[in-house]
Amino acid sequence: MIVLDETATTSLYMQIYGQVKGQILSGRIKEGSRLPSIRSLSVSLGVSKNTVKVAYHQLCSEGYLVNLARRGFFSQRIDQELFVNLNEKNPVKAPVGKARGEVAKPPEQVIRYDFQYGNLNPHDFPMGIWRKIANQVLFPFNSRSMASYPERKGERGLRTEIMKYLHMSRGVTCRREQVVVCSGTRFSLGLICQMLKEEFGSIAMEDPGYDGARDVFVNCGFPVLPVGLSGEGLDLAELIQCNVRLLYITPSHQFPTGSVMPIRKRLELLEWAGRNDAILIEDDYDSELRYGGRPIPSIQSIDGRGRVIYLGTFSKSLSPALRVSYMVLPESLLERYYEKFRKYVTGGPWLEQKILASFMADGHWERHLRKVCLANRKRHDALIRSVAKIMAGRVTIHGKNAGLHVLLEFKDGSFEGERLRQAEERGVRVYPVSHYWIRRERYPGNMVMMGFSSLTEKEIEEGVRLLGDAWFGR
Amino acid sequence: MIVLDETATTSLYMQIYGQVKGQILSGRIKEGSRLPSIRSLSVSLGVSKNTVKVAYHQLCSEGYLVNLARRGFFSQRIDQELFVNLNEKNPVKAPVGKARGEVAKPPEQVIRYDFQYGNLNPHDFPMGIWRKIANQVLFPFNSRSMASYPERKGERGLRTEIMKYLHMSRGVTCRREQVVVCSGTRFSLGLICQMLKEEFGSIAMEDPGYDGARDVFVNCGFPVLPVGLSGEGLDLAELIQCNVRLLYITPSHQFPTGSVMPIRKRLELLEWAGRNDAILIEDDYDSELRYGGRPIPSIQSIDGRGRVIYLGTFSKSLSPALRVSYMVLPESLLERYYEKFRKYVTGGPWLEQKILASFMADGHWERHLRKVCLANRKRHDALIRSVAKIMAGRVTIHGKNAGLHVLLEFKDGSFEGERLRQAEERGVRVYPVSHYWIRRERYPGNMVMMGFSSLTEKEIEEGVRLLGDAWFGR
Repeated sequence: MIVLDETATTSLYMQIYGQVKGQILSGRIKEGSRLPSIRSLSVSLGVSKNTVKVAYHQLCSEGYLVNLARRGFFSQRIDQELFVNLNEKNPVKAPVGKARGEVAKPPEQVIRYDFQYGNLNPHDFPMGIWRKIANQVLFPFNSRSMASYPERKGERGLRTEIMKYLHMSRGVTCRREQVVVCSGTRFSLGLICQMLKEEFGSIAMEDPGYDGARDVFVNCGFPVLPVGLSGEGLDLAELIQCNVRLLYITPSHQFPTGSVMPIRKRLELLEWAGRNDAILIEDDYDSELRYGGRPIPSIQSIDGRGRVIYLGTFSKSLSPALRVSYMVLPESLLERYYEKFRKYVTGGPWLEQKILASFMADGHWERHLRKVCLANRKRHDALIRSVAKIMAGRVTIHGKNAGLHVLLEFKDGSFEGERLRQAEERGVRVYPVSHYWIRRERYPGNMVMMGFSSLTEKEIEEGVRLLGDAWFGR
Repeated sequence: MIVLDETATTSLYMQIYGQVKGQILSGRIKEGSRLPSIRSLSVSLGVSKNTVKVAYHQLCSEGYLVNLARRGFFSQRIDQELFVNLNEKNPVKAPVGKARGEVAKPPEQVIRYDFQYGNLNPHDFPMGIWRKIANQVLFPFNSRSMASYPERKGERGLRTEIMKYLHMSRGVTCRREQVVVCSGTRFSLGLICQMLKEEFGSIAMEDPGYDGARDVFVNCGFPVLPVGLSGEGLDLAELIQCNVRLLYITPSHQFPTGSVMPIRKRLELLEWAGRNDAILIEDDYDSELRYGGRPIPSIQSIDGRGRVIYLGTFSKSLSPALRVSYMVLPESLLERYYEKFRKYVTGGPWLEQKILASFMADGHWERHLRKVCLANRKRHDALIRSVAKIMAGRVTIHGKNAGLHVLLEFKDGSFEGERLRQAEERGVRVYPVSHYWIRRERYPGNMVMMGFSSLTEKEIEEGVRLLGDAWFGR
């Protein structure tokens, strides 16, 4: 029995979807039951066939229903594993030692506030505009594009938009030809490794630093040299001692500590590169998201000698599901790029690139950036405010005023593992940072990471209150 | 002046698009002219605003118009370079030594019949269904998916469909967990190389063989050992002499010669792999397209000992613009895969995967395969028939009855370069094969490659007629 509320703000298909799903989960619709046909339900509810169809389709794709040809829609057995995976889309560990068919053990504590870093807030994605552009694009006049290989380094239109955007926002100067669209930063880094492996025997990176980049370097056979941090990012003195000519770095929001490298140090770094005939890989992964102070120009923008490979991504500001990253190669490396990757198609599917290019060209990107910057600034401010209020004097916050995460450092030196456990007991998840250190022994052990992009301000405040109870509680 | 024909089979937006484009190209609409606004043109033509909008939008994205904020639509300078690139989307050589702004030299001969291999026929792509599924998917209930990282090895639903399809059509036996969705075969091979580099010092491949695979092996630092072909694919005797434990192979339609490895040889190969503790990389790149005889089961399907990595792609049968390939790893390599790539997101954008999974689950894939198989069989038959009729006794055709290309071998030993040039003079393009040989000295020099996937039967017949004139002509 489905009851629709025409006056509700929830759309009709969402009401149908929600009620059928609820009845399957509660057992009121039994496993294997045949549901009313699209036509008959649309007649009995007085809605269009398409409304029912969209709801059924969604239920099918989520596994609640199955559509059997010429027989109709049937409710499905709800697999416990499916549930766990809906909540944790990218489980860090593959389930080990679990026999097939065995039901996963339910977690002991339901996590109500997950301060994860990576996934974004669903409300921030411009679904309506995306749908509209997809609709304008998926027409027969574009069949040739769907039947052909995309442009190798990425669609011309998208590369133009990226070039224009980077110039305006980050001072990056380049020709369109220098822009290479890739399916994620790991992919970009993999190409860079293959391109530079012969000439550069090893690579240096910040310690602590982005473990994803380190994985790629190691997988590509690069010895990785850790360089510690001083107050404002990379410790230049330590770098100079390394016998290395290739450096991966996150100067504008050091990952994970969030420090910002000042202009003086950027110039020193470029000077070091010049002296040593070195290449800098500048990963500007969340440069769109600044909440305070003036942005510092990218190293690429102050480099006059082609020593910088600039990396960026749409994963933090628009959608990690797009899998669109890009690199800007210096002119001096273009020839080497073509030599190795002349025939590689790096840019991912044509449709995604085409929609994104239109999204940018039509001015939606600029508006979207303003919107997500504001939304994330509010989340950021709520987090900082709550932590300051509830944990005053007990923690130091690192990496404020940018990006989608901060680090909390416990002044009493308490250990990360214990703090994570205490948080989970209250239904709050915060994250470890130890794996970002290459030389684990240097990690003082007293930090946790908190991402804020997927929560509301209210959830953030409530989560921090529970953390206060858990850690310093009554 | 635009005149619409309501009775035409061409849609109204296509008529507007075509006429505006024609007038810009002919110069009747001068560079920089302001076009009527969407509203005024829709009123004067008596069509909906959306019809005009779609047409204008397409003209903008192709560069004929530019949309200036608050000023309207203006015609653009038509760049000669743009034209060349429209016709040759993936130029093999980057234009060298061309000053910026300089107009590219027009080709001396217009190519009317291009027997290229790679791009497909635009009419074969199921645009309508794709659009419909995209519309069902791009709804707010999927915002969470658009705001999150996709499943690391590819969306669960898509991997399930691929697993089911491979089992039915190619006898591939695997669990869903063994299927890894990737953004193209080069990408899959890159991961394989990183995974196996340490244990396997070198890799063997067919000579001649797929140059794209060879590029990846070389770029990943693998010494590549060439193994010649005997009548039915790989020369086993030569393989045995190589001191190698890793082999890349295209057994079901050897690339580029098109030979099919018989079951006896497949079993011998597996026996070799067992004896030498070797891994076979089986690239089944166009297995969907068979026009005669029974398909031979994949090597993966007759391998009981987990010695085969199976590769496939949607580029030949559905769309190279999707950038969806997949690999099926043996159970024995899964642990090593997770060790290296636990956090890699390999499967490309969520939207593409979601549409493709629905396309397969809803039965469209099966219908599509029947359709493209028939369409390509007709093209194949037209090519074989025409060549037999016009070049009887002068050429041998290699690689019939499958895939999207054949090789022609000139019995008189004439050289490929000369033959390509003669063809171009008549406005027909056929392709060299010399670069598929690792040991170029073994290539007899007397072959050309002809792809047939992007032409109509009529074009194929006419093209072959012109080739006959060019090569053996009057």
